Parts: sequence; C-alpha cells; structure tokens
Amino acid sequence: MENFVFQNPTKIIFGKGTESQVGSEVSQYSKKVLFHYGGGSIKKSGLFDRVIASLTEAGIQYLELGGVKPNPRLSLVHEGIKLCRDNDIEFILAVGGGSVIDSAKAIAVGVPYDGDVWDFYVNKAVAEEALPIGTILTIPAAGSEASIGSVITNEDGWYKRPINYDMLRPKFSILNPALAFTLPKYQVACGAADIMAHIMERYFTNTKDVDLTDRLCEATLKTIINFVPVVLAEPDNYAAWAEIMWAGTVAHNDLLGTGRAEDWASHDIEHELSGIYDVAHGAGLAVIFPAWMKYVYQHDVKRFAQFATRVWNVDYSVWAPERAALEGIRRLEDFFRRIGLPTTLNDLGIVDDRFEEMASKATKSDTATLGGFVPLNQQDIVDILAMARG
Amino acid sequence: MENFVFQNPTKIIFGKGTESQVGSEVSQYSKKVLFHYGGGSIKKSGLFDRVIASLTEAGIQYLELGGVKPNPRLSLVHEGIKLCRDNDIEFILAVGGGSVIDSAKAIAVGVPYDGDVWDFYVNKAVAEEALPIGTILTIPAAGSEASIGSVITNEDGWYKRPINYDMLRPKFSILNPALAFTLPKYQVACGAADIMAHIMERYFTNTKDVDLTDRLCEATLKTIINFVPVVLAEPDNYAAWAEIMWAGTVAHNDLLGTGRAEDWASHDIEHELSGIYDVAHGAGLAVIFPAWMKYVYQHDVKRFAQFATRVWNVDYSVWAPERAALEGIRRLEDFFRRIGLPTTLNDLGIVDDRFEEMASKATKSDTATLGGFVPLNQQDIVDILAMARG
Repeated sequence: MENFVFQNPTKIIFGKGTESQVGSEVSQYSKKVLFHYGGGSIKKSGLFDRVIASLTEAGIQYLELGGVKPNPRLSLVHEGIKLCRDNDIEFILAVGGGSVIDSAKAIAVGVPYDGDVWDFYVNKAVAEEALPIGTILTIPAAGSEASIGSVITNEDGWYKRPINYDMLRPKFSILNPALAFTLPKYQVACGAADIMAHIMERYFTNTKDVDLTDRLCEATLKTIINFVPVVLAEPDNYAAWAEIMWAGTVAHNDLLGTGRAEDWASHDIEHELSGIYDVAHGAGLAVIFPAWMKYVYQHDVKRFAQFATRVWNVDYSVWAPERAALEGIRRLEDFFRRIGLPTTLNDLGIVDDRFEEMASKATKSDTATLGGFVPLNQQDIVDILAMARG
Repeated sequence: MENFVFQNPTKIIFGKGTESQVGSEVSQYSKKVLFHYGGGSIKKSGLFDRVIASLTEAGIQYLELGGVKPNPRLSLVHEGIKLCRDNDIEFILAVGGGSVIDSAKAIAVGVPYDGDVWDFYVNKAVAEEALPIGTILTIPAAGSEASIGSVITNEDGWYKRPINYDMLRPKFSILNPALAFTLPKYQVACGAADIMAHIMERYFTNTKDVDLTDRLCEATLKTIINFVPVVLAEPDNYAAWAEIMWAGTVAHNDLLGTGRAEDWASHDIEHELSGIYDVAHGAGLAVIFPAWMKYVYQHDVKRFAQFATRVWNVDYSVWAPERAALEGIRRLEDFFRRIGLPTTLNDLGIVDDRFEEMASKATKSDTATLGGFVPLNQQDIVDILAMARG
C-alpha cells in the first residue's frame, strides 16, 4: 500500500424526499444562487418546482441557467461565469447528472479567475479558488457529486479535458434514488458502465498489498452488477435504485483508490471518442474497457484472475489462471451487452478511421504515455482502438 | 435502505513516516496545544521525540499530559480541562490508541462548558462546542481517529459511558502502520475484536435492502480475519498492518452504517463488564458478542447464514440455513480463540455473579431495552451473560 491522504468532506443527504432540504442547505452558504440544470426532464418530473419551492421558502434568490448537454460544453460554462459575475452570485446549485455538476464546477472555478477557465483544463494555469457548489443528483453515473473532478468539452476542436481539485468537491449532495425512476434504459446502462469503469480504473493497479481496497472495489462492483438488471426490469424499484445510487458515489469519492496507483487510460481514450463522436461516455467505456483489458491482461494475469473469481464468480483453476482471467473479461462484455450497451466501435456506428487522431489527442505529445498499469504509447492506443472495432 | 446523512471531514494522512507532518497540520489550528498521551511506550519507541521535533519545527508550544489508561478515566479528563483553561490552549493533540483519543475528545468538549463534562455522558446536558483535536494513532482498534464518539469511565461508581457528536471527529488523523509493530500480541487481538465488533454491530440490522453496505462490511471483516494472524506471526509486517489499520478506521467512520439501523447492544453490555472489572474492551467483546449471537440468531437466520457464508466461507445448504448460521458463530469464536482471546467469562476469570447489576446499569432503567436488532430487557441481558459464562 502506498502512502496517501484521504479527505472527503462532502455532506451526503440520502433518501426519499430529501430534495426538500435544498433550501436550508443552500442558505448556509448564500442567499443568491445560480440554479444550473440540463434539459426539460426536471421540469416534467416536477423536481424543478420542488427545488424552487424549497429555495423560495428559505428566502433564497436564484438565477436560472439550463441547457447543459451530455459532454458539457465550454460555451455554456462561459455564459454561466458571466451570469455569476454580473449578478454577484456566490453559490452554484447543480440539479441533474454528472454533466450538469461538471459544468457547475467549471463555472465555480471560472468566476474568480481573470483568464479563460479553459486554461485550467489544458494545464496553462492552476486554479486557486472556486465558488462553493451543491448538487441534487438525478443520474447515478459520473460520481461528480462527491468527486474532485470536472470534465468539459471545448467545441473549438472537440477537446474533452478533465480538471481535479479538492476544492471542487460539492459542499453537499442530495441523493434521492426515486429521482432516477424516469431515466431512459440506455442512460441507466451507460451510467452503470461509468460507475464500473471508475472502480476498475482503480482496481487494475501495480500497487501490491491492497487487499482491503480490492475487496471494497469488488463489493461495489457486485452491487452494480446485481441491481442494474433489476432497475432495467422494474424502473421504480426504490430499493434497487438506492443500492445503485450510493454505489455510484462510493465508486468515485476516492475511498476505493486509497493507497493505490490508479490507471485512467480507458477513461482518457474514451474522452477522445466521446469528444469527437459525441457518444455517451458510458457507452464509449463499454467499448474501450474490454478492449483495453484484452490488450493488457498478460501484464498481471493474477489480478485479472482475482477480478474474474471474486467479481464474476468464475471457477478458478490453479492450473489455468489465464483461462479465468479471460473468462472474467468475457463476462464483463456479456454483462454490458445484457444491459443493452455496445461493446464494439462497430456497434456505435463508428466506421471512420480517426484512430491516430484520437491516440494523438489522448497522449497530447508524441512521446507521452497514458495510464499507469501498462503505460500506453500512441501505437498501443491505436491497437486498442483496432481491437475495439469488433 | 433508510434515509441517512453522511459526512466525515476528518483528513486521513496515512503511511510510513507520516508523523513528521504533525507540526504543519497542527499549525493550521493553533500555536499552543495540549499533547495528550498514555504510558511510556511512545517514549520508548522514539515517537514522543519525533512528535516534539515536528511541533517545535513548526513553532508550536505544547503542554504535556500523559497517563491515560485503558478505559480512560474522568479524573484525568478533569485535569486536562483545567490545564487547557489555565493555559489558554485551543487544540488537543492525542498520540496513542482509542483511550487517549477518547480522553482528548472529552477534554475538548469539556473546556468550553461551565458545568462538569460528565453531564454530557449521562445526558444531563447537550454539548454545543468543542476544541478541535488531531491524532496520531498507534493502535488500530477503537476507530476513534475518525469517529464521533468518546467513551469515558467515571471511577465514582465505575460507570463507562459514551457520547457522540459530529464536532468530535478529529480534524486530522495520522496513521502510520509501523507504529503498531511493537504492540503486545494480546492488545493486537483485542483491537481486532473491537474492529470486528464495530462492523458486526452495524451488520446485524433489521433494515432491509442494504446490500452494498452488507458487502462493504464483509469486505472489511475479511481483511481483519486475513491479516491479524499475519501480524501476530510477523509483528513488523508493514503491508499487513496497513490493511488492519485502514480497515480499523473504515470500520467505524460511519460509512458501513449508512442507511442501516445499527444495534450496539453488545458494546453496551461490554461497557458494563469492562467498567466493573477493568478488562480490555476487545476481550470483553470477544466474550459478549458470540453469546449475544447465540441468543438472537433465530430472529433472522438468513442474515446469520449470509454472515457465515460470505465472511467465513461456510458451505451453504438451502435445506439447512440454520446450520450455516450456527457454523458462522462457531467460526467467529474459533477465530477469537486462535488469536489468543477469551471467549467466556470463565476465561476472563470472572466468577463473580454481578449479572443483575450489569444488566441494570446497561439498560439504565428497569423498563428500557438495549439494542435494535432484538431489543433486550434486563432479563435478556442476564441470560446473555449466563450464556457467556462458559
């Protein structure tokens, strides 16, 4: 186990009806907020009105900024920054999924900065302060509700880039599993793939002696594997949604990575895919992750065999660990297909050959590599994309 | 799953040599601190000198208060409160195990209070503020390094009582697994029983649909079960100690109880045992917990069967779940014995029959009950103690 620092002060308010607490939570920080959201789904569901009612009851003024899209755009972030500055807004409330929360984080870190917020995403500048944010989560997937990260897409060149700062963890996140009842099935499945990828990016590590966190990872993965098929069949099963929603937060609040080197190559490759083709992040991960696994598993057959045995109940033979390792990857692919996800670029309808461009964008320079489990150069990434073709 | 709020802002600084960071951490809060510790072991090991060096380097003045005993005493807490008041001390640094940290928390909450701090422990008053504290942990056991709790023993009547306040979570806790190398084997085993009990008090719940936290509990229990025998055989095995130390914190930082009703009857009964007989808390738990299990398992055979199957790898027969349930309890007792713990009152040398007195102290009133899984009245507690006799 490596030395580590772990601190996650986000207040999680979890359960039925908890969105009614948003006003009193926000009022601890500001009496004037930006209410940031995506499309019309929160209006249709009535959530929008409930949030407004709670804010109003707490005497909080709000300005609205809707319109966040999946793979949230820099242009809307710029708009939000201007709105906050022009109106002396000091708190951002994000109501939605990871895209809305990531967009809110970008606005939060952009408001106090003189330059273009994109500077932080391309490592031209280091952020030193940010407005506080709070969230009401409607989609278990990105884990942004308790994470330090924000991923934004710059339409000028379709670059999709992350930043990570401790100060970006939300002050509070309200998680009501019932808000997920109305999600389209495909979005549920994409969220599941994203949650699983957050865990697997941490699981496949070269760090030795990480048994507790291995087991915590496996526990969280099994919860997703067991309950996603349940909510696909019964969209209003609160108990199953509660398991998935809490697992989605635990998967990415940094606990599962404590003391471990993490990888993140699959995420980085996928960011180029969804940046260029605007596919759903989770769908891209369901394609990239199995291909990455097949490409790297021989680097540590034992770890892949443990994954297969403990997560997928693969029968382990001490005489054939590689067989178990490969069977684990196969069951992951089967699972993705079972919940309705693509597992090849072909399934995504991506026939174009922009592999070199993606590899080059992902590594950022010709000599740089991606990931820690097996450092990947541009040719490796091209080979992984070719394996993902199907 | 029940609605819940989870927030744990304690900064965990984990790993080799991390005690050297104590000065810079403390200096974020105060330039004058109470350095609270137990016996001479931290002087023998050199830790005392390293802490002083780090504090001095950071320009921090300190007053010493050593002498904390297992089952920490109210009289020393009173002394600490007076020391802090007389010297305008605004931060308490606890260096030691759970007893030292619990004593520091009691001092922290006593300093700003006009009355006797014991008022909080007997629910005569509610605490509203506390000094901030930080810790350097030397014994993985109590989990106090990230918990809201403090347990103090009042020598006047040998009452052992807990308090729980969010504000008592340490600001930071430094966890260096190497500091545990020199622990006596019996203390290691007692710590293991305490950690396991913290998990099991949460695991045996009546709350339905808590699969994620069930699995996180099982993951953490298995880590203790796998690595405690390793450190008993190889006291300087850093990797194994790291698993145990992190598991000890995760066991009691409230994550594993999210969304679940908890029990705590075994802890409460044990507090009376160790209050009266001054036995080690972990040893008392190793006696009480299996007896409690045998007394209540029929209330939910499935849950005990799951515990047996997932934690102890008991072969499960769908035709005989009760056999699995009982086998799980048997394996827990076997494990406690294997690591050198008593499992009966007889083993502890307790032949005295003060069962009624303990039952009465534990429930506090004749009509009150203890615990949530199966609410226990005084006669139930007497029966459990009788089962524990051996």
